[in-house]
Amino acid sequence: MVPVSLINADRLWARLMALAEIGATRAGGVNRQALSDGEIEAWRRVIGWAQEAGLTTATDAAGNLFLTLAGRDRAALPVLVGSHLDSQPTGGKFDGAAGVMAALEAVVSFAEGGETPRRDLIVVAWMNEEGCRFAPGMMGSEAFTGARGIEAIRAVRDTSDISVGEALDRLHAAFPDLARKPLGFMAAAYLELHIEQGPVLEAADRVIGVVTGIQGKKTFQVVVGGAEGHAGTLPQQERRDAVAAFARMAAALHAEIGAIDAETKFTIGRVTIEPNAPSVVPSRVTFSIDLRHPDNGVLDAAGARVEALCHRHAPPCAVTITPLVDAPSNDFDSELRERIARAADDQDLPAMAILSAAGHDARHLAKVCPAAMIFIPCRDGVSHVEHEWAEPEHVAAGASVLAQVMRDLAFANQPSAAEA
Amino acid sequence: MVPVSLINADRLWARLMALAEIGATRAGGVNRQALSDGEIEAWRRVIGWAQEAGLTTATDAAGNLFLTLAGRDRAALPVLVGSHLDSQPTGGKFDGAAGVMAALEAVVSFAEGGETPRRDLIVVAWMNEEGCRFAPGMMGSEAFTGARGIEAIRAVRDTSDISVGEALDRLHAAFPDLARKPLGFMAAAYLELHIEQGPVLEAADRVIGVVTGIQGKKTFQVVVGGAEGHAGTLPQQERRDAVAAFARMAAALHAEIGAIDAETKFTIGRVTIEPNAPSVVPSRVTFSIDLRHPDNGVLDAAGARVEALCHRHAPPCAVTITPLVDAPSNDFDSELRERIARAADDQDLPAMAILSAAGHDARHLAKVCPAAMIFIPCRDGVSHVEHEWAEPEHVAAGASVLAQVMRDLAFANQPSAAEA
Repeated sequence: MVPVSLINADRLWARLMALAEIGATRAGGVNRQALSDGEIEAWRRVIGWAQEAGLTTATDAAGNLFLTLAGRDRAALPVLVGSHLDSQPTGGKFDGAAGVMAALEAVVSFAEGGETPRRDLIVVAWMNEEGCRFAPGMMGSEAFTGARGIEAIRAVRDTSDISVGEALDRLHAAFPDLARKPLGFMAAAYLELHIEQGPVLEAADRVIGVVTGIQGKKTFQVVVGGAEGHAGTLPQQERRDAVAAFARMAAALHAEIGAIDAETKFTIGRVTIEPNAPSVVPSRVTFSIDLRHPDNGVLDAAGARVEALCHRHAPPCAVTITPLVDAPSNDFDSELRERIARAADDQDLPAMAILSAAGHDARHLAKVCPAAMIFIPCRDGVSHVEHEWAEPEHVAAGASVLAQVMRDLAFANQPSAAEA
Repeated sequence: MVPVSLINADRLWARLMALAEIGATRAGGVNRQALSDGEIEAWRRVIGWAQEAGLTTATDAAGNLFLTLAGRDRAALPVLVGSHLDSQPTGGKFDGAAGVMAALEAVVSFAEGGETPRRDLIVVAWMNEEGCRFAPGMMGSEAFTGARGIEAIRAVRDTSDISVGEALDRLHAAFPDLARKPLGFMAAAYLELHIEQGPVLEAADRVIGVVTGIQGKKTFQVVVGGAEGHAGTLPQQERRDAVAAFARMAAALHAEIGAIDAETKFTIGRVTIEPNAPSVVPSRVTFSIDLRHPDNGVLDAAGARVEALCHRHAPPCAVTITPLVDAPSNDFDSELRERIARAADDQDLPAMAILSAAGHDARHLAKVCPAAMIFIPCRDGVSHVEHEWAEPEHVAAGASVLAQVMRDLAFANQPSAAEA
C-alpha cells in the first residue's frame, strides 16, 4: 500500500477552500463563470501556487491554462492532468476545481520531494467546460483537440453580447507575461479527477470510481416564432402565441422523452421569452434541450423524436431546431482504467467501475490520446447546486490515487503508445 | 355639423409623430416605459407645447402630469381629459400618446381661439398605464382615485431592483419647477380617447367607437418551486423540474381556459426561469397570467379554474398563486356616451357602440366621476406591437369629436352631477 502521504491532504483541502472564496455565493456555492473576473482571479491564485513550486506556466489561444513540472526527457510526450476552474452560476466548490487542485497538489508534492519525472507533467485547466455563459461548453478541450475551430468558438456571444473572442483577449491581457503554447499538442495520456455528480458511489459506499465512459449527449436550441399582440383584445383563435406553443411542446417532450426509460435524462434548462411583458401575447420563445443516454441507439432515436414532437406541437407557430452538441457515448482507455483500479487497490481504497452521466473534457481528449477519469463521491449525488459537497477524506483519497497513476505514467521509462 | 377645424389636424399629427421619436425602435415602434429617460423626455416635449399655449403645468405624488387651461369659474369642478405617455417595450406610436395629444390639441385650439371655458380643462397623462416595467399597471390613476395607496405603489420594483418610489423621485427631480397638485381631486367628468386595439371598428368601417364599458380582468403571478440539479446525472424520476411543471400547467391552462368561449382572453406573457442554464434542472419559474372576459360571472369562474389547474399540474413542484388585479367589467356613464354619439353624429362621423377589450385608466376614473371613452380604429386591430398604426384622418376625427364633447362639458353653464 502506497501511503496517502503521496500528497499533502491538508494543503490540498485548504487550497480548494481558498479557491472557493473566489466567486463565493451567499448560499455557500460558487458563481465563477467562464472568462469572468472570478476566473481571472482564480487563475492568478493558481498560477501563484504553481510558481511557488517552480512550475512553468503558459496559456494557449483557447484560454486553457498549463502548469508544467519539467521532465528529464523533454522530447518525451507529456502527461496531461486536469479539469476546469469555471462553474455554473449557482455551482459548487468541487465541480472542476477538485480535479485541477488534485492534479496541482500531486505535481507540487513531486516537486517538493525533489522528484523529477521522465516526462513533463502538465496540469491543465480547460476553458469554459460548463457552457452556461457561452454555450455549448467544453470550448477549451474542443479547440485543443481540433473538435471545433477557434474562430467559431471566438464568435459565440453571451447574453450581454460579449463574444468569447473579446473575453479571451481580456483574459490574455490580464496575464501579459504568460508564455503562449501552440493550440493543441501531443500527449502520452490525459487523466481527470472529478466528483461523480451522481449517487452511485455514495450508495455503494465506494471512494474511487474508475470511469468506464461517458454517456452520450445531444443538445439543441429551439426557436418558436409566433406573433405579438394585445393580451386584452386579440381573439384567442387568431393568436400565434409562442408561450402557448412552447408549453405544448415542452409538456409533450417531458412526458414522452422523459419516460423512454430510467436511463434517459431530458432537461429544458434555459428559456427566453420575447417581449416578456405581462399584457403582450409572446412572439418568440427560445429554449435549450439537453438529452443524454448511455446507449447510442436509444440516444439517436430519442433525438429524432425530440425534433418530431417539436414540429408536431408548434403550429400555428413556426419552429426551428438547431442541433448544438451531438456527442455519442465513449469508452475510456482500458489500460489507464486498469492502472487506476490497481492504484486504488494498492492504497486499500474501495473502487468500482462507473459510467459518467455528465460530460467532461476527457470526452474530447479521449479522441487524441489515451484518457481516463477518476470519480470521487459527492454528498447526496448532487452537483451544479450551491450546497454541492465532497468529504475532505474523499478528495484526499482521489488525489492520492491520481498521484500514483501520474507517477506510473510520467516516471517510468517505457515509451507511451503514441511514441511506440 | 361642426367642422373638423375645431382642432388643427396637421399640428396634432406632426406632434404625435414628433413624440414617437422619443424611444423610437428600429422597427418603427416605441419603447418608452414608465418613468424611463424616454418618458421624462416626452414630458419635457409635452410641457413645452403646453406652456407655449399658456397652459399651467403640474404633477402630483404619483407622477401624473396635468396641463390646465384655466376656466372663468375656478370653483367649478374641472373636466379631466387624457390618457398615458408610457409604452410597452415593443409598443407603437398611438397607444396612450394619441389620447394625450388629442386632448392637448383640443385645449391648445381653444386657447388659440381666445376661448375661455367656464370650468378648468385639464389634460392628464397618467403614470405607468402599461405595467410592463412596474407591474401591475394603471398606477397613476389608481393612486389618483384611491384604488391603491401611494406607499404600496412606491414599493414596487422593476427587474433591475429600482423601486417606483426611486423612479418617481427621479422624475420629480428632473422637473424641479413643476407645481405639485394634491393626490386626487374632484372632477366634473373624465374623457379618454384611445385606439381600439381590436378589429371591430375597422371591420365595421366606423371611425368613432362610443365605448360602453371595459371587459373584466384578473391577473396573477404564479411561482413554481422545484429543486436544482445536474441535467446529466439526476435521474428523471427524482427530479422536481420547475420548467416541466410550468409546461404542464401552461399547456392545460391554454387548452382549458383559452377554450371557454370566444370572448375569453388568456395570456401568459412573462416567464422567468431560475437559474436558466442549459445543463441545470430548473428550480424556479415565475410567470404572469392575464385573463379577461366581459361577463363577470364567467370571469370569476375562469379565475377559480386557473387556480385549480395550477394546483393540479404543479406536483411534485410547489406552487403559489398571487392575485394582482381583480377588476370586474364596468359600464361607462350613459349621459357622456350620448354626448359622444351626438358629437360624432353632428360631425357626420359614423359611430358605433363598442366594448373595450383592453383595460384603461378610465376604468378607475369611472369610480369617482362620470367617465367615458372614444375609440378610433387601428390597422388590422393590432396594438402593443411596433407596427401599430392609426390613420391620420381617424386621429383627427377622434380628436375633433373629443374637442366637441370637451366644449359641451366645460363651456356650458349648467352644474355637473357632482355639483348639483
